[in-house]
Amino acid sequence: MIIVKVGGGRGINIEGIVKDLAELDHKFIVVHGANAVRDEIAERLGKPKRVITSVSGYASVFSDEAAMDAILMGYSGLKNKRIVELCQQNGINAIGLSGLDGKLIQGERNKGIRVKQGEKVIILRDYSGKPRRVNKELIELLLAHGYVPVLCIPILDENNVAINSENDDIINILQQALHAEKIIQLIEAPGFLADKDDENSLVRNIPKDELAARESKVEGRMKRKMLAIRKLFADGASTVIIGDGRAPHPIKDALEGKGTTIK
Amino acid sequence: MIIVKVGGGRGINIEGIVKDLAELDHKFIVVHGANAVRDEIAERLGKPKRVITSVSGYASVFSDEAAMDAILMGYSGLKNKRIVELCQQNGINAIGLSGLDGKLIQGERNKGIRVKQGEKVIILRDYSGKPRRVNKELIELLLAHGYVPVLCIPILDENNVAINSENDDIINILQQALHAEKIIQLIEAPGFLADKDDENSLVRNIPKDELAARESKVEGRMKRKMLAIRKLFADGASTVIIGDGRAPHPIKDALEGKGTTIK
Repeated sequence: MIIVKVGGGRGINIEGIVKDLAELDHKFIVVHGANAVRDEIAERLGKPKRVITSVSGYASVFSDEAAMDAILMGYSGLKNKRIVELCQQNGINAIGLSGLDGKLIQGERNKGIRVKQGEKVIILRDYSGKPRRVNKELIELLLAHGYVPVLCIPILDENNVAINSENDDIINILQQALHAEKIIQLIEAPGFLADKDDENSLVRNIPKDELAARESKVEGRMKRKMLAIRKLFADGASTVIIGDGRAPHPIKDALEGKGTTIK
Repeated sequence: MIIVKVGGGRGINIEGIVKDLAELDHKFIVVHGANAVRDEIAERLGKPKRVITSVSGYASVFSDEAAMDAILMGYSGLKNKRIVELCQQNGINAIGLSGLDGKLIQGERNKGIRVKQGEKVIILRDYSGKPRRVNKELIELLLAHGYVPVLCIPILDENNVAINSENDDIINILQQALHAEKIIQLIEAPGFLADKDDENSLVRNIPKDELAARESKVEGRMKRKMLAIRKLFADGASTVIIGDGRAPHPIKDALEGKGTTIK
């Protein structure tokens, strides 16, 4: 079993990914992003993405109700169903699901972020949180009947309210439930870069024991990604591949070792 | 088994419908519209609904690619998932699906509409068509495992392309596959009105044998609805109820005979 994580950037070659998946010899599920589409919808609807900065200096997207609507439109609606359509055209009997459907992914809503408002510190609480539980039975039921689950946010919180959540965390909770052998992560870069600004600094292989050391040398999103990848191995993965989602054959390339292979 | 068709108008009381459904003693599936939400999204994105008139004088919505995107955002995204969320909050383990998912509803794309362009007659072909086949196995698989399918457009055409389709036709094809005992249709009116402009002209009961006669006395959408309802009986329905989707308890009211009951 393979978990395929597809980034939500504008440059991701979804057609190429789906064509490759159609030739795959393994069972797989797909988890996709849609941030570019979501941002564009939010912008065009006059509700652009809002970023807030916490008292401790940490910046994050604020998912208010309008932002959740944009996620439902962009992720669960436009992007998810266009991927499903493409899958169907390539002979993959995909079923697109959000974390809400069949309680597929349940989580816990964040308590709120402390931000400065003038002189005061107030707590802003948005619709975001951490995934905690997967409806493994539903995924296995669909796979057993020949369907390919194509998953995206939002997920449900503890009160069954739709919340935003990080796909890296969702991949981790899926791996805890499904124990996939391989996880392929397709991003808008050739793989893991030693120097994030230099596409020629691709690191082809990382022994999994070196992940902690790598983690300490990078920053921001890539640091969080390294931590997330370490957890995947703790939950039974034998291989994690970070591949170029922009390539003509993103999945084939990833499996042939053209990205960063972590074992 | 009950098929519940929920209209997509702004005035439909979705909360009331879901609360009623949570107390229902039967298996059921939901098919919903979202035309108000879709129109608003299309408008706000600067791609308002386009209506074309055929050479024979028949007006219809033209579903171009931008219109399909608005359907994916409004129906499969925003509306479908907000209904699923509400279901989960009321203890209904809903799974929201479009006709694309698992090839749930497959159809045939319309050949095109003949329209005048200046002196010439041209054929405009959009993404719309008629549903022809239902993946009954998938619906029954989900129902058997305690999930409630919540369905909406688009559907797939013969080339696995997403197309728009009429919910009345979708209800008919579902009934052919599922042979539901009752079909409840919730609209923005008290039920079938003898005079479409007078809400006090509600017809409480229509013997199914009188449907053909009724059909000849009404026009437009209601005429098509009467024809569609006749087909439901041909496919095994014992009762069709047209009820007020705006009421505090739309489903309870419908089952208690407050709308139009056709037997």
